[in-house]
Amino acid sequence: MERLKAKIRDIPDFPKPGIIFRDISPLVRDPATLRFAIHELVHPFLGERLTVVVGMEARGFIFGSLVAWELGIGFVPMRKPGKLPFDVHRVSYDLEYGSAALEVHIDALTDQDRVLLVDDLIATGGTAAASCALIEKVGAEIAGCAFVVELDDLKGRQKLEKHRVHALVHY
Amino acid sequence: MERLKAKIRDIPDFPKPGIIFRDISPLVRDPATLRFAIHELVHPFLGERLTVVVGMEARGFIFGSLVAWELGIGFVPMRKPGKLPFDVHRVSYDLEYGSAALEVHIDALTDQDRVLLVDDLIATGGTAAASCALIEKVGAEIAGCAFVVELDDLKGRQKLEKHRVHALVHY
Repeated sequence: MERLKAKIRDIPDFPKPGIIFRDISPLVRDPATLRFAIHELVHPFLGERLTVVVGMEARGFIFGSLVAWELGIGFVPMRKPGKLPFDVHRVSYDLEYGSAALEVHIDALTDQDRVLLVDDLIATGGTAAASCALIEKVGAEIAGCAFVVELDDLKGRQKLEKHRVHALVHY
Repeated sequence: MERLKAKIRDIPDFPKPGIIFRDISPLVRDPATLRFAIHELVHPFLGERLTVVVGMEARGFIFGSLVAWELGIGFVPMRKPGKLPFDVHRVSYDLEYGSAALEVHIDALTDQDRVLLVDDLIATGGTAAASCALIEKVGAEIAGCAFVVELDDLKGRQKLEKHRVHALVHY
């Protein structure tokens, strides 16, 4: 996946000192590389029954909607509290400092759905694990979780251990 | 465009009393309607030279990335301050109460680019006009602005009068 890494930019000390941010902007800016990334994200799941893609605000909207498009299924946004206008289900989860929450519309998923979760990056896995918990709370099944970038040292995959995890680029 | 309106949900009093929010979630959830919407957004611009799509955080990421995909060109995110990790250009603009700002990476656009701006909705046009100003500040050309929903009474189109504006659904 060196072709993808060549379009991911390292930004030292963002969003805080000591963190290297993996910036996917150059990848999204280049249509051929973006197409390659989406095809690689989708490929392991092509044989599966999937009904919907769930993507997390905000970069997950880019990759999630493109994966949904490529699979010919719908897209459901998972958002921070207060952003979705209709009635929502909510999950709260712990961060390194403090807590956060995610919401999904109450009619976005049913127990008939089989979901592919998509985000640009998995770090500690806290957000992805919370998203999975929320998806399962409404009775939907999780077919897998697909990420462009995985930060291996942070062991986020362990938080998703009962789910199939697919990542394209590892740091 | 009744087919699209059938998948746009009215939410009274969101985000504040007296406002009817036009919720595009059902449209994005339904793959056939989403495909129709993207094709209709793209169609008037198919004969044009376009190099990139710019989409505004966060719903603009969904429609913008799909329009870019369909056109075979790249996508550039326009974000609220502090979200983009690399060096940025910024534009500030007035809201009804207070002000806001948008940022774009300094290397995302050049004076060789011809841009299609995409968002889910145009209301007063303040955000879209600021985005256009930022795109032109870096020397890129604006080919047009495409929106799924236009709120006609708010006359946002007037703020974009020198640009070509395309909207699918009017309220």
